[in-house]
This record gives sequence, C-alpha cells and structure tokens, in this order.
Amino acid sequence: MPAVAQIAILAPGLLGGSVARAARARGAADRIVIWARRPETRDALRGQTWVDVVAATPAEAVREASLVVIAAPVDRIVPLAREIAPALRPGAFVTDVGSVKGPLCAPSAEALAPHAHFVGSHPMAGSEKTGWEHGSADLFAGRPCFVTPLPGAAPAAVGVVSGFWTALGADVVTAEPAEHDRIVAHISHLPQVAASALCSFLSCTDPRWRDQAGGGLRDTTRIAASDPTLWREILASNRTEVLAALRAYRAELDVFVQALESGDDATVAARMERGRVYRAGMRPPPPAPR
Amino acid sequence: MPAVAQIAILAPGLLGGSVARAARARGAADRIVIWARRPETRDALRGQTWVDVVAATPAEAVREASLVVIAAPVDRIVPLAREIAPALRPGAFVTDVGSVKGPLCAPSAEALAPHAHFVGSHPMAGSEKTGWEHGSADLFAGRPCFVTPLPGAAPAAVGVVSGFWTALGADVVTAEPAEHDRIVAHISHLPQVAASALCSFLSCTDPRWRDQAGGGLRDTTRIAASDPTLWREILASNRTEVLAALRAYRAELDVFVQALESGDDATVAARMERGRVYRAGMRPPPPAPR
Repeated sequence: MPAVAQIAILAPGLLGGSVARAARARGAADRIVIWARRPETRDALRGQTWVDVVAATPAEAVREASLVVIAAPVDRIVPLAREIAPALRPGAFVTDVGSVKGPLCAPSAEALAPHAHFVGSHPMAGSEKTGWEHGSADLFAGRPCFVTPLPGAAPAAVGVVSGFWTALGADVVTAEPAEHDRIVAHISHLPQVAASALCSFLSCTDPRWRDQAGGGLRDTTRIAASDPTLWREILASNRTEVLAALRAYRAELDVFVQALESGDDATVAARMERGRVYRAGMRPPPPAPR
Repeated sequence: MPAVAQIAILAPGLLGGSVARAARARGAADRIVIWARRPETRDALRGQTWVDVVAATPAEAVREASLVVIAAPVDRIVPLAREIAPALRPGAFVTDVGSVKGPLCAPSAEALAPHAHFVGSHPMAGSEKTGWEHGSADLFAGRPCFVTPLPGAAPAAVGVVSGFWTALGADVVTAEPAEHDRIVAHISHLPQVAASALCSFLSCTDPRWRDQAGGGLRDTTRIAASDPTLWREILASNRTEVLAALRAYRAELDVFVQALESGDDATVAARMERGRVYRAGMRPPPPAPR
C-alpha cells in the first residue's frame, strides 16, 4: 500500500512509540505527528528522529492527519476519540492499540461518524516494559495484529488500517470486537492472570526460594512484571470473557488436583501430553527486535 | 577443588550429557565413563569427545569411579543405586540429578552404606528438551544446584558433591531432602502444572487462536513442552508437597475470580502489584548456554 501522507500518534507508550519508529523505518508514513499528555514527554519526543512534529494538543496533532493512532490505555481511548472528532479531516481514519475492543469500538466509531472512520486494532506485541523509550521499529514484525471492524464498517477504512499494520510488518487478523475479546481473554488475559497469581502466591513463601529457581519459573512469570495499573483496566474492560476463561482454567487445575489426590497419574500424564502437543504446535517466535 | 580422578555417569539424558560436557570443558574430571541403557545410545556416545569410555553395564561403569552421577529419571534412581552398590570402590561418592529428593535419598544412601556414600543433587537447569544430544557444557553455569545431604551425612561426601557442581559453574544450595521437595513443589513443579494446565485447557479452544497469540502466551507456556512421562513420575514422587502448592495457587486464583466477579478491581491490582514486585526481584538469567 502507498505510504500514509500524515499519521498522528496520540499518547505514545511502548506501542505508540514503536508505531512511530516502525512507520519511519519502513516508510509507512510521509510525516509523523505526535501528541503526549505530559509536557516533559513532549519535550523528550522533540529530540527523536522518528518524530516530525510534536503537537501541543490532540486536536492540533490530528488536524492534517489521514490516519490517527490512539495509543492510550483502554480507559482513555473513547474520551480521546470524542476529543479529536471535531478536529479531524473529513474522511480521516482512526484506530487504536487497546487490548480490549468491545467496549471501545462502537462508542469511538459513533463519536467520529459520519465524517471520519474508526476501526480498532490490537497488535499482539506487548512487553512487560512500558514507555515509548522502550519502543522498537521491529516490535510488530511477524506478530499478529487484530483489526476489529464493526459490522458495516467502511471497507476503505478496514483496508487502510489493515494496510498500515501490514506495512509495519504485522500479520493482520480480522475479527469483530466481541470475538476479539473472547480470543484475547484466553490467549492473553488468562496467561497474564495465571502468571500474576503465581507470583502473588509465591510472594507469600520463603523469600530465599526465589533465588533457587531455574529458567522455568522465570519464563512462566515474565509477564507478571507487567504494569498492574494498565492490567486493572484491561481486565475490568473484558470482565465477562476473562471470568469465563479463568473459571475454565481453574476447572482444568481441579482435574490435576483431583487426579493427583486419587493417584490417577495416567490422567495427569494425559492432560500434560495434550498440553505438550498444543505447545509444540505454537508458531515459532519472530526474530528478536533490534 | 582438585579434579575428580574418574566420574561415571549413568543413564545420561539432557542433564547427564551436560554433566559430561561441562566436566570435560572445565577439567572437573580426569576421566569420564558413561553407561546408557540402550545399545544404540552407547554406540552414539562412543563418538563423543567428552566421553573416555562407554561401559556395557552400570557395574562396569562405576568400578573405578570416585564419583558416580546417576542421571536417570526419578523412578530409576534407587534401583540403579542398588544395582551398582556391590561394584563401587570403598569410599566412592554417588549423587543423582533427580527433581525429587525425599523418596530417593534415604533408600539410595542405605543401599550404599557403609562402604560408599550417597548425597543427592538437583541442578535447577532443565529444559523442555530431553536427550543427551541437547546437552551443553554451560547448562549449569550460574544456575542454582541443590545438594541434599541426609542428617548425619559424611562431611567429605557433601564436600565432594558440592565441589563438583561448583566446578561445573553452579551455585550450590544445601537443603535437607524434605525441605528441597517443599521448595521445588513451589518454584518448579507448580509452574510446570500451571503451564501444562493452561495449554491443556487451551487445546480445547478454537485451534486458530493459538496462532494469534503474542510472546506472553509463548513464554508462559514454554515448559508445557516438557516430557509428560518424566513429569508424571516427578509429580507422583512429590505428591503431597505438589498438592499443597497447587491448592494454595488455586486459592490465589480464586481471589482474582472473586474480585473480578464483585468488581473489586483494587484487589486485582493489589495482587498483581504484589506479583510484579516478586517478579522484579528475581535474579537475572545467566548468559545463554553456548
């Protein structure tokens, strides 16, 4: 797809900073405008080679943009969509990078219609790190990225947003917002809670034990280092689906507990084997970001 | 410590193969003798530069050894200790690499006493890979290794076994067998079941979802690729401690479930923060093995 003439990135964290770097590195946008809430962040962004203009307000940032990426936490996306709506060019496209889509996409689209278009996005490329400073031009390369049009979304809008992520190297997966939320409750939010609960429990055990662990505990709990403030909002925004996935996981753990209690080690082995086959079929990771 | 004159490694898998490679690379033994159960494995081992002699039987392998490392799965360690007992040199030291220590150490020590000494070991350096072919001379470098003497063990035996692991680059942690089993139930066996149960549950969901996951699910479930046959025995051998850890983990998950159900997002965030602090205090991984 041809490069977007001008993109605006609002409230860049790890993902927004990576969108800007990747767009610059891959020539996906001719001009990159950024707005950040905090004045000191705006000052720091002015020195970056992958930023053309740092705007003082969201409205100023989006005024000439053909594509806007709202990179704020999930609870700030709809308010920002409403705030920029009057300033958008007619026919502008707006997306986001939020981890939950159902509660955001319809109100964001309504806030912009009919003169501009919202189509949600969710790149599966987070990290336990936060902050635009940790961004990488390769963060999205070879990673899935959900694009979540509402029924009846303008095909041109879906095409521009999907094409942008493809230009950043991502593998686009299209799903309706509710379907997206059910999927990520299982493959992202459940692993997060499983890892966080494991560390939360272990924090109550002998503190020397932690230093005696091998790589298994380290890898299993890597994402437990993630920011609880962000995750509180993500889990709250996807409460129903997360609870369904958590209850089903707990039921699976119950199978292990009951099998171990009753000496039914064949069931333990069978469930582990089923898990092994699942894990072995996972696609290999993309090359590490530069 | 001075190099061991001769070591014998019985039934090498990933860990036994790595012991041999590391002992050769670091000069921790003058002579390395190996026995493997399957004739084709013995043939393959004969071509390795880190093997001096491949023995046809366990007894033949240990006859001249001052230190024997039983690298078999947990259910084969006591039988091998009994089998080699009559062939050991007086004063020989025997250890193992089993993931569970309580059920193994006393019977193994009894099988050898009084003319030889058993002191258990458990290097925290596994992998989801199995087989001596995947071994590495650096597998133990910077990794914890439990050494688990029974009360009243000969100090010389504890010293030789600890010194050997130190020579291979490991950080030795001394604990009684029962204490070891309680620790690893929490920091190794619980993460294994948590990861395996996660994959076992997810294997029942839409198969396309797996390809849409990011690095979080990949890391959280890495150890779910481990061999269920080995783990069946490990969990069965440490049943009581594993069940205690699993029940406590399930109770922690219940806290998350109940907090999400009741909209008590502050509790969700507080537990995640406690977990984040625990994870952030984990010691960094050693450099990747060559």
